[in-house]
Parts: sequence; structure tokens; C-alpha cells
Amino acid sequence: MLFNKKENNIVLTSRVRLARNIDGVPFPQKLNEKEINEVIKNVSDSILNSNSAIAHEFNLIKLKDIKPLERLSMIEKHLISLDLVNEYLRAAVLLNRDENVSIMINEEDHIRLQVIYNGFKVKEAYEYANKLDDLIEEKIQYAYDSKFGYLTSCPTNVGTGIRASVMIHLPALTMTKNINNILNTVTQVGMTMRGIYGEGSSAMGNIYQISNQVTLGLTEEEIINNLIAVTKKIIDQEMKTREMILEKQSAEVEDDIYRSIGILKYSRMLSSQECLNLLSKIRMGIEMDIIKDIDFNKIDELLVKVQPATLQLIEGRELDSKERDIIRAKIVRESLR
Amino acid sequence: MLFNKKENNIVLTSRVRLARNIDGVPFPQKLNEKEINEVIKNVSDSILNSNSAIAHEFNLIKLKDIKPLERLSMIEKHLISLDLVNEYLRAAVLLNRDENVSIMINEEDHIRLQVIYNGFKVKEAYEYANKLDDLIEEKIQYAYDSKFGYLTSCPTNVGTGIRASVMIHLPALTMTKNINNILNTVTQVGMTMRGIYGEGSSAMGNIYQISNQVTLGLTEEEIINNLIAVTKKIIDQEMKTREMILEKQSAEVEDDIYRSIGILKYSRMLSSQECLNLLSKIRMGIEMDIIKDIDFNKIDELLVKVQPATLQLIEGRELDSKERDIIRAKIVRESLR
Repeated sequence: MLFNKKENNIVLTSRVRLARNIDGVPFPQKLNEKEINEVIKNVSDSILNSNSAIAHEFNLIKLKDIKPLERLSMIEKHLISLDLVNEYLRAAVLLNRDENVSIMINEEDHIRLQVIYNGFKVKEAYEYANKLDDLIEEKIQYAYDSKFGYLTSCPTNVGTGIRASVMIHLPALTMTKNINNILNTVTQVGMTMRGIYGEGSSAMGNIYQISNQVTLGLTEEEIINNLIAVTKKIIDQEMKTREMILEKQSAEVEDDIYRSIGILKYSRMLSSQECLNLLSKIRMGIEMDIIKDIDFNKIDELLVKVQPATLQLIEGRELDSKERDIIRAKIVRESLR
Repeated sequence: MLFNKKENNIVLTSRVRLARNIDGVPFPQKLNEKEINEVIKNVSDSILNSNSAIAHEFNLIKLKDIKPLERLSMIEKHLISLDLVNEYLRAAVLLNRDENVSIMINEEDHIRLQVIYNGFKVKEAYEYANKLDDLIEEKIQYAYDSKFGYLTSCPTNVGTGIRASVMIHLPALTMTKNINNILNTVTQVGMTMRGIYGEGSSAMGNIYQISNQVTLGLTEEEIINNLIAVTKKIIDQEMKTREMILEKQSAEVEDDIYRSIGILKYSRMLSSQECLNLLSKIRMGIEMDIIKDIDFNKIDELLVKVQPATLQLIEGRELDSKERDIIRAKIVRESLR
């Protein structure tokens, strides 16, 4: 199956995360303050003091040294996990300048290495994660069992310790409720699918995360290839559903997409949920070649910017809910002008 | 009470209509074809063959000579009545070039003379109607009783035969449901109030017509002055309500108004009802000085243009409901560009 650029854009980002622990050191939750700091030092040294050019791309951030809003914004950008923030007094992160590679230190595991690439680039993200993994391993001995593979704090990660995922935009499958069938199928092949943004499994902005559930008993390559194959099938379903909708209700679909532009360009108050849903419709319009004068990267940027914490960071102060809605509308309006 | 230009704009149009009949000639419904045509000839001669400069401003249109859509469009523009169209085989209208003065011939009465002025200009409309009335009377002897006044087909018009009305835009009173109190008050002082556009008393676009109910026992001047006084009071109520809303919910009101612009500028399908309601919100925005770059005359033009029959006349062909919604969106979009 060949995918052109347009189809590729249905995937917003591809992410690969590796869980690793240091041999002979207890898991973070068992460590005292001194030991915690040793882990931070050893892991950050393995990158920052390496001979690789990569060393110059990273900065070490101790979570206790930054503002709560900055920590929340990093979660919204998927750079760190909520678990890491909950351990902010003991946790740190190595972050690269492009803000797409993060190495979390002292989350559940000593090391959670994560690479996010824009678009459908799971393999490329995996390759770069591997490269960083090798770099760290030059200095650090991983906890590894010849039978079980990499040992991790949570048994679900034991094995390859890999979690690969895509963030995928499925407005047509959501609109037609076919998303429920997709969800069942995905689960049957050992993957999981959930809504991004918003709580629980609700999918604001019609954006879903598909990731491998099983890490034991499969090679890393098998996990990556399975995710790619499943994602391609879902893209295919989404494309077919869009064609069907467009055939039956082209005027209604066009109207819906253009109204979304009108509202985003003119509204003076926008809730997070409405904003994400309208941005989703515009994104679909771009993907379907109905909208030609807006770049989908601009929409993806906005999807991050309009999140509550990131929004407040941009504005430089804490805002109540109504103020956020007003600022959100302003940011979107100015961006789409 | 002084009204500035902005307050004046709350009144879209002022209309004065006089009902007259020719002395010694039975009411239209009793006439045969030959007599009907004589009435048309006599009335039109009284204008078209007069020595006044006014003569050159008018054209005689026999309703059977124009297309059904053109007749319906004239109703939408309030130039003729539905009753006149129902009698289209026997009815005619003298229409001036500016399309704001019409003299219906063979409606319920032989003559229904009507002047519509933009804005709050009831007195001016009345004066011009009087002038035309005098011109006709130079050639035609009216049916008049010294006790009852002008004799008309329907008893409700007996007396002065005058009906004076304003089309008034009351979004704030509608929003707050205070319109119901206004409605009661208006009725108590011998006036009536109903929604314009849409069926029955529903007020699409938040536009209402206030008119005198009683024509007997009052002089023409008293009727005109009563209407002006009541209208001023309602304008005052509407302005106060707007201020109150703006004070309590300025962000929400602004948002609502700007969203209306966004939707009208971007939608690809617009029902008549939604379109009128959105135009109403923009009109309120202009009246409240929130919107400064749209002229309210453009909105009033659109209020007429988007009506189903007028829309089809503009497009030059009959359209089904979905086609109308698509063309309506296009006309509005291009007008507001």
C-alpha cells in the first residue's frame, strides 16, 4: 500500500518510547534522595558528556526548578508524563532543543526515552530512539534478563520495554461511529486506542492514540511493523469513509468545514473542547483538499497552543476559565488571520 | 426624548398605508372584468396622466403580466400584499422607480396607497402619502361619509383608512423575553405588534412590526403621533436592555455577534431562518457600535435579498430548498467580503 503526502497527514505524530533501568540500582520509588540524584547525574552524563554531537542538543531540566505551569505545558506537549510531574521533587528530564526528544529520569523507571516525529514516521522515530539507547548504554549497564528482556518497574513494560504509538486524526470514522469497530479490531491485535486530549477515552478533536499493548514475546521490529500495518489499515478506512461522506453530503461537509474556519477566525471566546473540534474539522478540510490556503502544521501548532497550561505560559500569567476562553480565541484568530 | 442616529437605526423602515375607494363603484370583489379594468385605468390615469413630476416616477404593473416569482418577491419586499397576489388576475400596482411607493389597485379596496421610508420616518412617510392621496383625489371622487370617514371594504379600516407601522429590530428585548411585556403594553394602547418574516407571530431576525389597530375615532395625526410615541418608548426599552446585557455579559455578547459574522462570511449553506437570525445579530452589533466596518444598510439589503422568492429572482431560476440554502450562503458571503 502506497501513501501519498495527503494520506500521511492523517497521522499527526509518531512516538517511540523505551523504558530502561540501571543494573543493580533499585527502581526509583525505592531510592533515597542521594541515590535519586546519582541516577539523574549518571543518566544525564551519559548524554551530555558523550562524544556524540547529540550531546550539544540536550539540556537537563530538574522538574522542581521549573514552574508548575511549565510542567503542565510539557505534559500537554506530550514531552513528559503525568507520573513524572507527580514525582517532580525527584524527577528530571533531558530535553532536546527541537522539543521532540525527551529522556525522563526517575519516572516509574530510571529512564524513559521518548522520540516524537511529526507525520507517519514510526520507523524513523524508532531508529533515532535506538541510537540514543546505544549512546546511553555506552556508559550505563541496563537491567536485562536473557529470558524476560529489559526489566521494568511495571510488568506490562517488561520485554522490549518499547511503547510505539501514533496520534491519528479520524474525523470521518468518528462522525459515522465506525470508530467503535476500529477500536475492537485494534484491541484484538494486541494494540490499544484512546482519545488524546480530554479525560478518559473521549476523543476531543477526533484525535486518537494507537499504541502497542504487549511488549513481551515480540521483537522490537515486530512491534513497530505491527503498529505501522494497523495504522495503514485505519488510514485506509478513514479515507474510504471520507470519500463516502463526500459523495453523499459534499455540500454539508464543505459547509461544516468552512463554518469552522469562520467561527475560529471571528469568535471572541472559545472553550478548549470546541476549539479542538473546530480545528479538527479544518484539519480534515485540508487533508481532503477542500481547504487549500491553510497549512496543516499551523493547525497542529494550535492544537498544542490552545491547551490550558501552554496557553497560560504563552500569556505569561495564570488565567481563570473565562479569561482562557478569551485568550484562546485571540490566539487562534491571530494565527489564522 | 432625543434620538441620535444610532438609536434611529433600530427602526428599519416606517410605512404608511391609506385605504381608499371610488365613490359610486362597488368594492372590487363585486366587480366584473370590464369594471375591474376601468378601476385600474382610472386610478393609474390619476397618477400617470397628472401634471405633477410624480407622474414620471411610476409604472403600472398588471399582476397577471409578471411571473409568479416576481409577485412573491414583491410581497417579500412588502411592496404588495398577499391579498393582492391572490387576486392577481384582476389586480395591478403602480410602483415608483425607487420601489418604496406602491399603489395597489383592486385589493380589498380599490386603492391601497403605501409609502415605505428607511429609518424612523413615520411623519415623513405620512406626508408623502398625503401628497399622493391629494393627487389622486384631483381626478377621483373618494367614497366618504361625514360621520364614518373613508368607507372601506373591511370595517377595521373605516375612518381615516390609515395604517401606519414601523419595522423595528428588538434583539435584546427578544433575548431577555421582555418582548412579551412590550407586546401586552402595545395592545393596550390600541396598537398591534407581530413578527415580520416567518409565519404567524414568530419573529425571525428579531424584527417586529408595530402598527395602529384602530382607525375609527382618531385623526390621522393622532394615529401617527401615537405610533411615534409608542415606538420611541420601545426603542428606549430596547436600548436599556442592551446596556444591561452589555454590562453583565459583554464578552458573551461580543462573541455571539462576531461568530455571526464568521458564519455568514464562511458558511456554504444557510437556511432562511438562520440567515435572518445571524443578520439580526450583526445588525445589533452595528447598532451597539461593536461592529464598525459593516454598514447597516448592507444588512437590510441582505434581509430582503435572502428571502426565497427574491433569491430565486436574483439567481434567475427556480431553486429547490437545498439549492436556495447554497445560493443564499453565496450571496451573503460575497456581499460581506
